[in-house]
Amino acid sequence: MDDLPLLQASPHRLEEDILALARFTQPDLPYTRLAFSPEDRQARQWVVEQMRSLGLAVRIDPAGNILGRREGQDPRLPVLMTGSHIDTVRAGGRFDGIVGVVGALEVVRLFNEAGIVTYHPLEVVVFTCEEPTAYGFSPFGSRAMAGQLDPAQVLRAVFPDGRRLADLLKDIGGDADHLAEARLDPARTLCHLELHIEQGAVMERQGLQVGVVTAIAAPCRGVARFVGRADHAGATPMSERADALCAAAELVLAVERIARSYPDMVGTVGFLQTHPNMVNVIPGRTELHLEVRSTSPEDLVAARQALQREAYAIARRRGVEGDFAWLYCDEPVVIPSSVRHHLEEACQQVGVRWAPIVSRASHDSARLASVIPVGMLFVPSHRGLSHCPEEWTDFEQIATGVSVLALAILRLDRYGL
Amino acid sequence: MDDLPLLQASPHRLEEDILALARFTQPDLPYTRLAFSPEDRQARQWVVEQMRSLGLAVRIDPAGNILGRREGQDPRLPVLMTGSHIDTVRAGGRFDGIVGVVGALEVVRLFNEAGIVTYHPLEVVVFTCEEPTAYGFSPFGSRAMAGQLDPAQVLRAVFPDGRRLADLLKDIGGDADHLAEARLDPARTLCHLELHIEQGAVMERQGLQVGVVTAIAAPCRGVARFVGRADHAGATPMSERADALCAAAELVLAVERIARSYPDMVGTVGFLQTHPNMVNVIPGRTELHLEVRSTSPEDLVAARQALQREAYAIARRRGVEGDFAWLYCDEPVVIPSSVRHHLEEACQQVGVRWAPIVSRASHDSARLASVIPVGMLFVPSHRGLSHCPEEWTDFEQIATGVSVLALAILRLDRYGL
Repeated sequence: MDDLPLLQASPHRLEEDILALARFTQPDLPYTRLAFSPEDRQARQWVVEQMRSLGLAVRIDPAGNILGRREGQDPRLPVLMTGSHIDTVRAGGRFDGIVGVVGALEVVRLFNEAGIVTYHPLEVVVFTCEEPTAYGFSPFGSRAMAGQLDPAQVLRAVFPDGRRLADLLKDIGGDADHLAEARLDPARTLCHLELHIEQGAVMERQGLQVGVVTAIAAPCRGVARFVGRADHAGATPMSERADALCAAAELVLAVERIARSYPDMVGTVGFLQTHPNMVNVIPGRTELHLEVRSTSPEDLVAARQALQREAYAIARRRGVEGDFAWLYCDEPVVIPSSVRHHLEEACQQVGVRWAPIVSRASHDSARLASVIPVGMLFVPSHRGLSHCPEEWTDFEQIATGVSVLALAILRLDRYGL
Repeated sequence: MDDLPLLQASPHRLEEDILALARFTQPDLPYTRLAFSPEDRQARQWVVEQMRSLGLAVRIDPAGNILGRREGQDPRLPVLMTGSHIDTVRAGGRFDGIVGVVGALEVVRLFNEAGIVTYHPLEVVVFTCEEPTAYGFSPFGSRAMAGQLDPAQVLRAVFPDGRRLADLLKDIGGDADHLAEARLDPARTLCHLELHIEQGAVMERQGLQVGVVTAIAAPCRGVARFVGRADHAGATPMSERADALCAAAELVLAVERIARSYPDMVGTVGFLQTHPNMVNVIPGRTELHLEVRSTSPEDLVAARQALQREAYAIARRRGVEGDFAWLYCDEPVVIPSSVRHHLEEACQQVGVRWAPIVSRASHDSARLASVIPVGMLFVPSHRGLSHCPEEWTDFEQIATGVSVLALAILRLDRYGL
C-alpha cells in the first residue's frame, strides 16, 4: 500500500458552491445560463474569484477557457488538468458540468488544507460553451484545445440575432484572432480528469457511488428538412396533400425505431420546427435536428445509413422534397487503460461501491481525448434526470466522487501514466 | 325569360384592385396582412376610400365590420349583403377573401355604370378577422354578426404580446363595449352572398368556371398536449424515455389516418410546438393544434371520438401525460335551396360551366348561416393552392364569377327567396 492521503471532500462546501452558481440564471427560466449570456459571464467571474481566493493563478486562453493554475514542485513537468463546464441548456439543471468545476475547486481546497504540493502543476479548467448554441460549434472550448476549430469559421460566425461570435468571445476574455494558440501541447499536459454526473439512471439502479468511465459514446448530429405545400387545411383533400409535418412525424418515429434496434444506441429528435405553424394551414416546411449515439463505430455507421435512407424514402412516398445531412459525427472514445487503472485504484482505496460504466452523453473530455489522455468519473443522477430543472445528485454523493478524484490526481501525480 | 341585364365584370379592374390590396403586406413576408395589424388597417382604409368613391355610405359596426351601403328604391326592404374578408394568414395569398370584397365593389361599379337601382338596399361587407389569431375568436366579425361572441370574453382578451383585443378593435373603429349591437337583425337582412376562391383543385380538374356551394364543412378544432420528461438525449436509454415528441408524431399520423378513413373528411395538425426544442434534450412537452372537417355531422362525431381515444391511448402506451380538448366544433351548413336556385339560374343565364360543389373550408358565410340565408359562389384555385403566396386565380375567371354574382343579386332583388 502506498501512503497517499485519503482526503475527505466536504458535502457542505460543495453544496454552497453549487447553490451559489445556481443563482446565475435567467430568473424567469431556471436554470438557464447559456454560454456567452450575461448570466454566464457573471458565473465565470464568480469562478475566477473562487480560484484567486484559493491561490490559483488565473488565465483565460484565446477560446475563453478559464485556467486556474496551482504550481507543483517541478515547473518542467507536464500539467495535470481537471474541470468541466458551467454553461447550461435552456431550463437545464444545477449539476451538469458544474459538479466537475466545483469538485476541482474542492480538490484544490483539500490540497491547500493538507499542505500538499504536487510534483506536477495542477490546472482547474472551465471549458467555454459545452452545450449547443445557435452557432453549432459546441463544445467550443474543448474543441479549441483539441485544435478542432477552424479559426476562419469562428471569425465569420454570427448569431441569428446579429451578434458576432468573435465579439462575444472577446467579452469573456478570449481572442478569436489567436484561437490556434488555445490548442493544448501534448508534451506539456499529462492528463485531464473530469468528474461529472451520470445523466442516466444506471448507477442509481445498481446502487453505485462512483462510475469509472470506460468509453464515451459519439454523437452524430444531422438535420432533415421536408418541403411540401402549405395548402388550406380545410379545402385540400387528403389525397392531394404534401404535408411536411406528416413526413417529419414518420422520421421522428423512424429515429426511435432504428435506435431501438441496436444495443446501447440512443436516437433523439430534440428539435422540430414547423412552418407556417398555423392551425388551418397544412405544414409546408419542417426542419428536424436529430442525433444518434453509440459506443460502437459499426453500429453508428449502419444506423446513420438506415436513417438517411428512411428520410428519403418518406419524402418519395409522400411527394415532398426531402433533404438530409449529417452535420458532424464524432468517433467514440475509449478511455486509456492506464488512466482507468488509477481511477479504479482510487475507488478501491477510498472504499466506494464502483463499477465501470459507459458514457452515453458526450463531454469536453471526448474532445480532448484526440490530443491528450483523459479519464472520467461519474456520480449518480437521481432518477437519471438531466438537462432539466429536476436534475439532482446528493451533495454527499458528489463529495464521495470528489474524494476519489483527489486521490486519483495524487496517484497520477506520483506514478504517472 | 326575364329581362335582367347580363353585366360583364372587368378582369382589368379586378386585377388592379387585387394588386392594390396585395401591396398592404409585411414587406419581408408576402402576403401577410394579419387582422388588426398596421397592414390590415391600411388595407381597410383603402377599401373605405373605394367604397366612398363608388358612392357607398360607409359605417363600421361595433365588431369592426366595414359596411358600404347602396340605397335601393324602398328603404323598408331588407338588405342584400355581399362581401368577404381581407385579412390573411401568415405568408398567405392575394385572393382568399379578397376576391369576394373586390368582386362586391365591382358589382357596385357595374350597377352604377348601368344606372341600376335595386329594390332592396345593397351592402358591401368586409368582415373583421376571418383568419385565426392568437385570441382564438376567429372568424371575429361574422361571429359577432351571428351573435356568437361572448362580449365579456372579448373584453377580457389579451394578445400574447400584451395588447388588449378591445384596444385593437377600437383602433379599427369597432367598440367592444357595444359588441351585441353588431348582431344582424334577420328581419332586416334578406340574404348574404359570398364569392370566394375554391382553395382546392376540384374545379380546375373538372374544367369548371363557377361552383355553386351546396354545403360548408364544419371544422372541429382541438388541442392536444403531451408531457413527458426532458432528459439528456445522450444519457437516457431508449427504454427509460418519456418522449413527448414521439407521442406527438404518433398523433400527427393518427389524425391523417382517421381523416382518410371517412369520405370527404380532412384532418390536419397545422401547429406543433416542442419544448425545450434543443437537439440534445429529449422533448419534455409538446402541444398540437389540430382540426377535422366534414359535411357529415355523423362522421365528425365518430372521428372526434376516435381521435380523442387515440390521443389518450398513445399517452398511456408511452408513459407520458396526455391531455386532449376540443376547442369548438361548428355544425356543417347546408345552403338553402332557394338561394342555390338563384345562383344556379344565374350560372345558366351567364352561360358558364358550373357544378354544385362542397366547401371544405369554412367561411364567414358559415357563421351568418345561423341567422340569415347565405349563398356562396366559387371560382377555381390554380393547382388548388391556398394560404400560401402561390395562391392564384386568373382575373378572367374572377370576372366570370363576379358576372354571375351580379346577376344572382339582381335575381334575389327582383324575385326574393
